[in-house]
Amino acid sequence: MNSFGRIFRISIFGESHGASVGVLIDGCPPGISLKIVDFEEKLARRRSGAKGTTPRTEPDIPELLSGVFNDKTTGAPIMILFRNTNTRSRDYSLFTKIPRPGHADFVALKKYRGYTDYRGGGHFSGRLTLGLVAAGVIASKVLKDMKISAHLVEAGGLKDIEKAIDMAVEKNDSIGGIVECVVSGVPVGLGEPFFDSVEAVLSHLLFSIPAIKGVEFGSGFAAAKMHGSDHNDAFIDQSGQTETNYAGGINGGITNSNDITFRLAVKPTSSTSIKQRTVNIETGEMTDLEVEGRHDLCIALRVPVIVEAVTAIVLADFKMLVDAEGLTKH
Amino acid sequence: MNSFGRIFRISIFGESHGASVGVLIDGCPPGISLKIVDFEEKLARRRSGAKGTTPRTEPDIPELLSGVFNDKTTGAPIMILFRNTNTRSRDYSLFTKIPRPGHADFVALKKYRGYTDYRGGGHFSGRLTLGLVAAGVIASKVLKDMKISAHLVEAGGLKDIEKAIDMAVEKNDSIGGIVECVVSGVPVGLGEPFFDSVEAVLSHLLFSIPAIKGVEFGSGFAAAKMHGSDHNDAFIDQSGQTETNYAGGINGGITNSNDITFRLAVKPTSSTSIKQRTVNIETGEMTDLEVEGRHDLCIALRVPVIVEAVTAIVLADFKMLVDAEGLTKH
Amino acid sequence: MNSFGRIFRISIFGESHGASVGVLIDGCPPGISLKIVDFEEKLARRRSGAKGTTPRTEPDIPELLSGVFNDKTTGAPIMILFRNTNTRSRDYSLFTKIPRPGHADFVALKKYRGYTDYRGGGHFSGRLTLGLVAAGVIASKVLKDMKISAHLVEAGGLKDIEKAIDMAVEKNDSIGGIVECVVSGVPVGLGEPFFDSVEAVLSHLLFSIPAIKGVEFGSGFAAAKMHGSDHNDAFIDQSGQTETNYAGGINGGITNSNDITFRLAVKPTSSTSIKQRTVNIETGEMTDLEVEGRHDLCIALRVPVIVEAVTAIVLADFKMLVDAEGLTKH
Amino acid sequence: MNSFGRIFRISIFGESHGASVGVLIDGCPPGISLKIVDFEEKLARRRSGAKGTTPRTEPDIPELLSGVFNDKTTGAPIMILFRNTNTRSRDYSLFTKIPRPGHADFVALKKYRGYTDYRGGGHFSGRLTLGLVAAGVIASKVLKDMKISAHLVEAGGLKDIEKAIDMAVEKNDSIGGIVECVVSGVPVGLGEPFFDSVEAVLSHLLFSIPAIKGVEFGSGFAAAKMHGSDHNDAFIDQSGQTETNYAGGINGGITNSNDITFRLAVKPTSSTSIKQRTVNIETGEMTDLEVEGRHDLCIALRVPVIVEAVTAIVLADFKMLVDAEGLTKH
Repeated sequence: MNSFGRIFRISIFGESHGASVGVLIDGCPPGISLKIVDFEEKLARRRSGAKGTTPRTEPDIPELLSGVFNDKTTGAPIMILFRNTNTRSRDYSLFTKIPRPGHADFVALKKYRGYTDYRGGGHFSGRLTLGLVAAGVIASKVLKDMKISAHLVEAGGLKDIEKAIDMAVEKNDSIGGIVECVVSGVPVGLGEPFFDSVEAVLSHLLFSIPAIKGVEFGSGFAAAKMHGSDHNDAFIDQSGQTETNYAGGINGGITNSNDITFRLAVKPTSSTSIKQRTVNIETGEMTDLEVEGRHDLCIALRVPVIVEAVTAIVLADFKMLVDAEGLTKH
Repeated sequence: MNSFGRIFRISIFGESHGASVGVLIDGCPPGISLKIVDFEEKLARRRSGAKGTTPRTEPDIPELLSGVFNDKTTGAPIMILFRNTNTRSRDYSLFTKIPRPGHADFVALKKYRGYTDYRGGGHFSGRLTLGLVAAGVIASKVLKDMKISAHLVEAGGLKDIEKAIDMAVEKNDSIGGIVECVVSGVPVGLGEPFFDSVEAVLSHLLFSIPAIKGVEFGSGFAAAKMHGSDHNDAFIDQSGQTETNYAGGINGGITNSNDITFRLAVKPTSSTSIKQRTVNIETGEMTDLEVEGRHDLCIALRVPVIVEAVTAIVLADFKMLVDAEGLTKH
Repeated sequence: MNSFGRIFRISIFGESHGASVGVLIDGCPPGISLKIVDFEEKLARRRSGAKGTTPRTEPDIPELLSGVFNDKTTGAPIMILFRNTNTRSRDYSLFTKIPRPGHADFVALKKYRGYTDYRGGGHFSGRLTLGLVAAGVIASKVLKDMKISAHLVEAGGLKDIEKAIDMAVEKNDSIGGIVECVVSGVPVGLGEPFFDSVEAVLSHLLFSIPAIKGVEFGSGFAAAKMHGSDHNDAFIDQSGQTETNYAGGINGGITNSNDITFRLAVKPTSSTSIKQRTVNIETGEMTDLEVEGRHDLCIALRVPVIVEAVTAIVLADFKMLVDAEGLTKH
Repeated sequence: MNSFGRIFRISIFGESHGASVGVLIDGCPPGISLKIVDFEEKLARRRSGAKGTTPRTEPDIPELLSGVFNDKTTGAPIMILFRNTNTRSRDYSLFTKIPRPGHADFVALKKYRGYTDYRGGGHFSGRLTLGLVAAGVIASKVLKDMKISAHLVEAGGLKDIEKAIDMAVEKNDSIGGIVECVVSGVPVGLGEPFFDSVEAVLSHLLFSIPAIKGVEFGSGFAAAKMHGSDHNDAFIDQSGQTETNYAGGINGGITNSNDITFRLAVKPTSSTSIKQRTVNIETGEMTDLEVEGRHDLCIALRVPVIVEAVTAIVLADFKMLVDAEGLTKH
């Protein structure tokens, strides 16, 4: 299903080289100020152009096709469309016979029985994250006092990210990275035990972002080596603030008023100009493949803004749910 | 929401020291053989008793209260109930004023405005995973040829897990661990791009397991330090098999016929007998807390069987969805 | 799916002659007073015993197995179980070969491939409505000031219902009826345009009640013969009150502060002692069937209390949704 | 929520006088032939222009913006957009103070706190049914052998519909009508007991169509006056065919192989040129209102094609669910 959320609900659609990509947002409260200009900063952060990202450039101008009237949300579904304009005419049909390692070519062919739009990754393209970023802009307005901030803190194994990019450019080989995210101003009581725990629902959307291989909250994988007496965060006041924050701001799946913290592992882009070994799935013959074209050398550069967006989407939904369930009012 | 799944759908309920815990399973196909004895092995693996786990022992005998007739599923909802019998009468009400660090005491109190059943963790208790394990037994029967196997591969930072437990017992302080899971016999085509990617949905249920702090698929966090030319898994035949499996059996969110592989970080149990610093949330006074009682020193010992269960639940749902959507038949 | 609702969510399960029937309620706010005695009046109204209803009598005592602590809801799922005790040992297996006209025997056999629990109607039994009535009791407490009242206003074509029952008993042939329902104290703003209109969602649950053949709101089928100038309800004040109420309290799918009004057609029970024509589905031979046993001669007598229950369930969910969506506060 | 369906899932959006209306379809199987021309017949039937319908004419040309490649569905979400072109500049803002009787003006204002797009009915407009009709065209292709046929069988109380329209035109007052629908070629086994019964889910979407006041299946309200021995449909062969069809093709919520039959009551359009009594909701003063403009005198004329569409949508979803649940294969 290409939809997510219970109250603040998003649906994404589109293909990389088709007519458009976009997002439909249902359940947004009425009366929220919304103009095209509000999307600019986040879309610019996501857009290509930086060293290490693909030279494909799209203007990425959102069309607000419903749900907004007099620059305010109305409470009706909000349709945001991005026309694709800069789609190269290169022939991608080769990859329906000779699938690229690390890409979705093979699974798309098998799952959709050959009917998939294979051009530029089609519906699997990272371009679909445009809709996520747009929805995140609106979700952020629902959150008001919560602030979400994500950063690339490591690339290609280095903390010096500029240097890492230079090395990747030199080798002409893609690199991965680590993204950290912190949410501050979080009220107590978002999330639910078990299936709708904050970690559960947030990881669901975080792993929906292409190229994410790992997600950890608070102490994360380091917790596996710790003792309970160290890991438990001592309370320092009645508001729930704690001395340490190994819990990442979440106990029993529910926010505890401390910052929500988590980290993501981003794999190196599958697109690479380096020769790779693959198979002709019609004939079974092994073959080498060299893929020319526009590649992101470090897709991790674009991930933070998308992480912020999906985090806002999840928290907006949680916030509205808490009101629905007659639970803690903030 | 205490429900999960689109077609094979589970709902869990209950409290640690209330009348019962259990699970309701909706959407299970008819004609699947099901007897009480089928649950024994998995429930025994989950049950307490091993060194490092709490001495509380429950018989954990499931009652099949609906959806089964003549030892076969009928297609109607399956209700499985576990009566709680071994519930100690100790007074937990202290923790509604003096919340235990690392536990859900504080958030439960705030979110549910003091109405929560606080005894033994109430609805937040790990005892709720009984329902997950029971549902996993049935889900496994839907999967037929897929085999799911999870193991504790590290505890307290050591590969020698027995030694790690001994040290935890000696220190009387809880330890965490790392669980690995491998699914073999996976058909191509389970999962969907973006929100219902295998990683997304699986992580959702994995993070629903108490004490999980991190989840990584395939290369996981190591991917952040790799190059694309190394990370891409070269195809070795037409069936989708690859030479390496950094992808963890998933491309573009969809299974590619290789084993699904993932790892989880388990934190040390919050329950500990060691003195901790906390606050009286009524008076605001800081105080020390020593919690006696039955504690798991290494909850990670119980996690593998629960991981197998939720993985089976997720894959059963994906398998049924693939049929629904008229996609790849296997 | 045997679940319904977005926030206040119910799941029913069980079989007529199996171990139990019941309901699981998720999303109920914490702090609502709830005791076994609260269910008595509604369950008594539903229970058999009146002239025209089946002589099967069950004590129908609900077990509250989770989600309630110190006689208050906790916010966790509420599990309510009814043990079946008065299940006759009669052999129903005949009907898996010789399906009863008007019953679900034939479709159950075909859909569930012979695995269904066919005893006493199994999962198709009207006994499943016990769970609906129990959930309705709790939903009513969420609604507070809204009052729901349903009545049988016609049976067997007569307004004098006692006389109608007498005639049915005399002929020993079942009769149908008309149920009317009025909800007063309704705030403006429940419901949404299109798919979640009050009529849409309410009809969904009303048609889930066995034996319902028609549902009409406000003017209903009579509207088809009216003129617009007559049908439009003139406003009489700023609060939305109208002179007439042909709209049945709903405009554009949303409550307008007037009473919600609707009517239901209840068919005569399919169970009858009169000889009927049917087929042996194994041999294809036509045959006559006489069904002995306990029959409801006028199932419509039991419908009002169930209608009240499902109406409460739907309105409780709408009320909580309105809060979630940041819409009209009442 | 502006979405509906579990597998074949639709979401509608848009406003009457905003930029667009449309539909997003998720879960459509790949490989279904789809061209713009396929929509023409149904859109033409829905479009205005006939006597008794509003003179507003839109070209209603769908844009297929995603999910279709080489004139075939791909399995990805299908985005269909209709640009609004013929939107008059008349001032509708009057109705935010002086709500029109029978319209959604009052509830929209209250529910959405004044932020609603009130022009031409905004998101409440019947123009939103364009998306339903478009989705129905695709759903019909999923159904293959099932044929859905709906007709207006009565208008303004007359069987002679042309005469009824003439009278309405003469009086310049709107009239209602009765629509009948028959689905043939239905396999046994669609639908589920209780909440997802065919009647329940179908009525949900039928009551989502503006102006519908009643829905009845098979014998409908007439059943209330019948005896059980008459109402039960005698089987005539092993395939489930029955002599009569009072059940409307459904037993226990599940299709029984006979035609699905149902009838709908359509109210007279609320729009009328006749003077009406209403209130100024700001001042509380009573006032008369005369609404000029383009009105449908018999909206029931447009209903059949929409009924066919939503019926196709519901049945497509049921068909895919049956496959998902491993139930009866057809």
